[in-house]
Amino acid sequence: MNQSLIKELDNIRSLPEQYHKNVLYVSPKQQNNIREKTILFAGVGLGSVIAEAVLRIGFEKFILIDGDQVEKSNLNRQNYISDNVGVSKVNAVKQRLLSINPKAQIETHQLFLTPENMDGFIKRCDIAINAIDFDIASNSLLFDKICQKNKVPIVHPFNFGWAGAAYVITPESDLMPIKSKKNTRYELTLIKDFIKKYKKKKGLKLDWFEKFLEDYSKYSSIISPPQLVVGSHLASAIVTNILFSLSNGIKVKTFPKSYFLSSR
Amino acid sequence: MNQSLIKELDNIRSLPEQYHKNVLYVSPKQQNNIREKTILFAGVGLGSVIAEAVLRIGFEKFILIDGDQVEKSNLNRQNYISDNVGVSKVNAVKQRLLSINPKAQIETHQLFLTPENMDGFIKRCDIAINAIDFDIASNSLLFDKICQKNKVPIVHPFNFGWAGAAYVITPESDLMPIKSKKNTRYELTLIKDFIKKYKKKKGLKLDWFEKFLEDYSKYSSIISPPQLVVGSHLASAIVTNILFSLSNGIKVKTFPKSYFLSSR
Repeated sequence: MNQSLIKELDNIRSLPEQYHKNVLYVSPKQQNNIREKTILFAGVGLGSVIAEAVLRIGFEKFILIDGDQVEKSNLNRQNYISDNVGVSKVNAVKQRLLSINPKAQIETHQLFLTPENMDGFIKRCDIAINAIDFDIASNSLLFDKICQKNKVPIVHPFNFGWAGAAYVITPESDLMPIKSKKNTRYELTLIKDFIKKYKKKKGLKLDWFEKFLEDYSKYSSIISPPQLVVGSHLASAIVTNILFSLSNGIKVKTFPKSYFLSSR
Repeated sequence: MNQSLIKELDNIRSLPEQYHKNVLYVSPKQQNNIREKTILFAGVGLGSVIAEAVLRIGFEKFILIDGDQVEKSNLNRQNYISDNVGVSKVNAVKQRLLSINPKAQIETHQLFLTPENMDGFIKRCDIAINAIDFDIASNSLLFDKICQKNKVPIVHPFNFGWAGAAYVITPESDLMPIKSKKNTRYELTLIKDFIKKYKKKKGLKLDWFEKFLEDYSKYSSIISPPQLVVGSHLASAIVTNILFSLSNGIKVKTFPKSYFLSSR
């Protein structure tokens, strides 16, 4: 064994034991930075999967907001177990996060964000994950607007089945426009935008995504968008990198630029 | 509401309730096919994250093999909780999988695969995930050889920090060569191959990966490869798509072709 090499390595991996294997990817300073940031989760559907990844890399302060209870049909892609069905989502996520890191600070609010209550939560966080349903698109987009006013960066994660994606809105970037036509789901507009950009401009093969758009256009008036665990895991990887980067002054792509990863 | 549309949708989503939201991405026939496949996990480090995604999409038959116990330093990226530290990995994964789907069939073996015991397990599965450490690269590559002889496809997942990747070996494809130089970790050879292919041929920006290769080359004699939860989630998304595709006759890329997704 090379003793001077071991000593050198000990310096760069002076991380708490549970983060030892972050070494070389995460410096001790970066590990400290992310521990101090408070992340607001507006919605813990897809947010439930993202929260676990974000905790595992080393974030320790969370504000979780969601009025929903766990349903059996969430289990195909969200971070819940069978016994959670019928209980509050934020409480179930809190329990899971604490089981991994008992020292994490998890604040929960079982309620839905409205134009009246958003401001108070936003003022107390460093970065927000906007995973509010687009059923009321105007609420989701108003959330961004209030964050921007408060200089809080926002990450919008998307579960697109076999793909995952995200937009980042910063105080300097554009806001997402309210552009879906009347009686058309906002998600359909988003999917069209992503297909256009990544198929035509980046040359990805997205036949499966075009087929999905065609099928879902037909049924979108009667069901909310289908989603897979694959999209959850891709979105959580994308968002974890974005939160780490925003917390450490590493440049990220901001709206209208985007992140998009497809498993196919 | 359009009644005929609802009826039509009811047909295509005649999936068990926990898989309802797979609709349009997964047909009832495909959902049945994956439920019947037995997946062998050779190693449940990275395999622990993959197993959960694979279960959530609808696989229900698992053989888990790993002789290791959970260590605190696994928590930054593997699917374990604080209370699991010191207990058998396969038992901890079994408990987690059953908490999500109590009807799943999870067979566990707390042992390490050796040239002597591989054959019996391989004969009983439909697809194998080879997540055996490369500490003894020859064991990992022998595993592939025996799978190929038994006509069992193998998926090799890789956690590359901010990226995830996989190779697929089928009875018709090439095997991965034993090509790492003496005293050089197999992972270094792999990383060089991926950088070469995806940076030069696909035009990705992988400055972070080149920097990691440089740093890790220095320390690779004294530590096993650092890994992040980001790589775990990317690998699990990639592998879930591959297992679904292999089970449903959808074409996959086989070695020497590869899957590679980077969050940066």
